Amino acid sequence: MYFLQFTAESSSNSMVERDFTIGEVPGVLWSPASSTADRAPLVLMAHGGGNHKKHPAMSGRAQRLVAGCGFHVAVIDAPGHGDRPRTALDEQEIAVMQKAMATGEPVGPIVVRYNDHLAELAVPEYQATLDALQELPEIGTDGPVGFWGINMGTAIGVPFVAIEPRITAAVFGQHWPDVLAEKAKQITIPIEFDLQWDDEHISREEGLALFDAFASKEKSLHVNSGKHKELPRFEADSAVGFFARHLS
Amino acid sequence: MYFLQFTAESSSNSMVERDFTIGEVPGVLWSPASSTADRAPLVLMAHGGGNHKKHPAMSGRAQRLVAGCGFHVAVIDAPGHGDRPRTALDEQEIAVMQKAMATGEPVGPIVVRYNDHLAELAVPEYQATLDALQELPEIGTDGPVGFWGINMGTAIGVPFVAIEPRITAAVFGQHWPDVLAEKAKQITIPIEFDLQWDDEHISREEGLALFDAFASKEKSLHVNSGKHKELPRFEADSAVGFFARHLS
Repeated sequence: MYFLQFTAESSSNSMVERDFTIGEVPGVLWSPASSTADRAPLVLMAHGGGNHKKHPAMSGRAQRLVAGCGFHVAVIDAPGHGDRPRTALDEQEIAVMQKAMATGEPVGPIVVRYNDHLAELAVPEYQATLDALQELPEIGTDGPVGFWGINMGTAIGVPFVAIEPRITAAVFGQHWPDVLAEKAKQITIPIEFDLQWDDEHISREEGLALFDAFASKEKSLHVNSGKHKELPRFEADSAVGFFARHLS
Repeated sequence: MYFLQFTAESSSNSMVERDFTIGEVPGVLWSPASSTADRAPLVLMAHGGGNHKKHPAMSGRAQRLVAGCGFHVAVIDAPGHGDRPRTALDEQEIAVMQKAMATGEPVGPIVVRYNDHLAELAVPEYQATLDALQELPEIGTDGPVGFWGINMGTAIGVPFVAIEPRITAAVFGQHWPDVLAEKAKQITIPIEFDLQWDDEHISREEGLALFDAFASKEKSLHVNSGKHKELPRFEADSAVGFFARHLS
């Protein structure tokens, strides 16, 4: 059992930002500045590899969900990311990945292996975070909860959502099917899934295989032309619309 | 050279509906009731097989584009559809199609052949309609023009957009690649493309092959679980957002 401690608070653009820790794990909770309703839905997010909880992709999505939908949004730093220390294994895997990038070797097998390791650590952290956030009166235990994570966020999110019945809608995307496809078969909630058609790391077949694995009756795949890092910004608006439909 | 004649006018929900004819072809133009700007973008739509210009799918999309974006929206009846007479060939092809449906034979080859015939007739009609609508002061020749057609609307739209440089953004989907893929290779404007993952008539491979054929640098594919007729209504909102991004 971990306790949530708020460590800092600020506010801008009608959004309150509260840093917190749960045990050793640092996170951030964004909320509407003035809440008219007693409680509001929560979206848990997971950041991408090499990024952190307050990366602009995270705060930008939060701005849309908080200002646009009145939701709460929370992210925690993944193991070895953001304000968390790197282990010797983190350093080693990152070095192997950077070498593969530099020499043009396939990075898939390395990323799949390393992300699987991080997910094993992160899934219980996400569960503890959800436990603690649901203790807050403005979130509560009854409200709907969404999950949004692309890339490494999907590597963490698929095993998390597969065993977490409190998550009722999720946005995933841009990962290899290895390891994850078996877990995706256990997921039946509505999902939206992003895939880049000209991804230099993840083939079309691999991307489609992961989408295909989800057992969800309602699932949408958004494919866009462009390379791995060129996911269009309008997909963030689409994901916000998806959560507005399913959590409101 | 055909002249546009308005034959009826009504208004509801802040939308003006004007029936028109261009030669023998009946159409409908939906416009904002009170236009603040002098001119507004136009979206040409094409209805699906067996439907007509004022099918609820058409008027519903128009409502979103007119009320939501302030655009003009026009549809014409396809040959043999709506208020237009059927030829002996129409009757014959429809009978063959219905027989195939009833006996469970593949309808693809019949629909592809019949839609190709209809497209040959409809493409010059769409060009004449665009010529005539651009004569209207509230549309004009300078403004951006979109095209939106799914199913048979794609069979007509792909050859139309392939030879029509005035169209600057298009939403297509749910058709076989036969006949159309070669023409799609000539299309370079931004497109959004809808595909049903469990379509009982169009296989995944066929759907993906048509999407893949477009030469557009910016193209998005929206795949949803469900059968041919189960395209989710939220894809209409997505298409409206697409046109708002590209035509505004």
